Amino acid sequence: MTIKRFHGTSRGRCRAVAHGGLVYAVATDTGSAPTVAEQTRSTLAILERILVEAGSGKGRLLQATVYLRDMVTKAEMDAVWCDWIGDKDNWPQRACVGTDLAGNDLVEIVVTAAA
Amino acid sequence: MTIKRFHGTSRGRCRAVAHGGLVYAVATDTGSAPTVAEQTRSTLAILERILVEAGSGKGRLLQATVYLRDMVTKAEMDAVWCDWIGDKDNWPQRACVGTDLAGNDLVEIVVTAAA
Amino acid sequence: MTIKRFHGTSRGRCRAVAHGGLVYAVATDTGSAPTVAEQTRSTLAILERILVEAGSGKGRLLQATVYLRDMVTKAEMDAVWCDWIGDKDNWPQRACVGTDLAGNDLVEIVVTAAA
Repeated sequence: MTIKRFHGTSRGRCRAVAHGGLVYAVATDTGSAPTVAEQTRSTLAILERILVEAGSGKGRLLQATVYLRDMVTKAEMDAVWCDWIGDKDNWPQRACVGTDLAGNDLVEIVVTAAA
Repeated sequence: MTIKRFHGTSRGRCRAVAHGGLVYAVATDTGSAPTVAEQTRSTLAILERILVEAGSGKGRLLQATVYLRDMVTKAEMDAVWCDWIGDKDNWPQRACVGTDLAGNDLVEIVVTAAA
Repeated sequence: MTIKRFHGTSRGRCRAVAHGGLVYAVATDTGSAPTVAEQTRSTLAILERILVEAGSGKGRLLQATVYLRDMVTKAEMDAVWCDWIGDKDNWPQRACVGTDLAGNDLVEIVVTAAA
């Protein structure tokens, strides 16, 4: 089974990898927007482009991990997430945990999706 | 390949998703029990029900991530985990890391399992 | 589909599990080296042995999560990572987040790889 890698601007890692009917993808806001709502919108827009490029889409999400710099902002992230994810047919299994993140990132989202 | 989603009470995400012979599931204690031991027991009982409902079971776990609010409680969580997971034929690859969690959650467990 | 489990010295969990063309593996430094660079080198050497033992290898990585005790050390970890991972054909989707870790661990790496 072939492995298809989608390189971004970072060294040593890819934005997405496709293999065996699954797509593994990660996104974070690249513009250091000041609020979690803005960063989440930007992150999800980037994630959607990556998923489509890798042969999947937001309606094919299986598992998601949302890393938040500050869990106090979870409701703010959730409002944007729910607006983006749409109806029940799209909902992945998801966990949201509070971790430190690189640079000015307030949110980072990792997913496994069906191709 | 079809995606089967198992909805819980949360908006925007599922307790479990089944696809391609794999089940992705998450559980946390819903009762805000005061100790890690109690929350772990409750979380694992909920996880087991979700796995069975999604066509898997604790003997089919492949990968687990245990998120703990306080790593000082890892031994307490581990004692309950080892009691639950049983013999060597059940042991998944597992990582345990300390993160912030939502509400009063002291532990949250995410797994990938074979259907 | 059979599940093949690779047991280490820890109770209740495996170093790696192979199933359905995928390998799930975790590694951390076992010697409590004092720097992130040393722990990352040791962790990646252990990970590579585990992957090979489980029928995969570093050229077959799909998804990686790097847990760092202190995100200030990310550049130090990244230098070792990039040296180890080699050319673009090997790069997995990767996320790096700051979490608390067990004992004296400064870094822990979890991967999904193709068999």
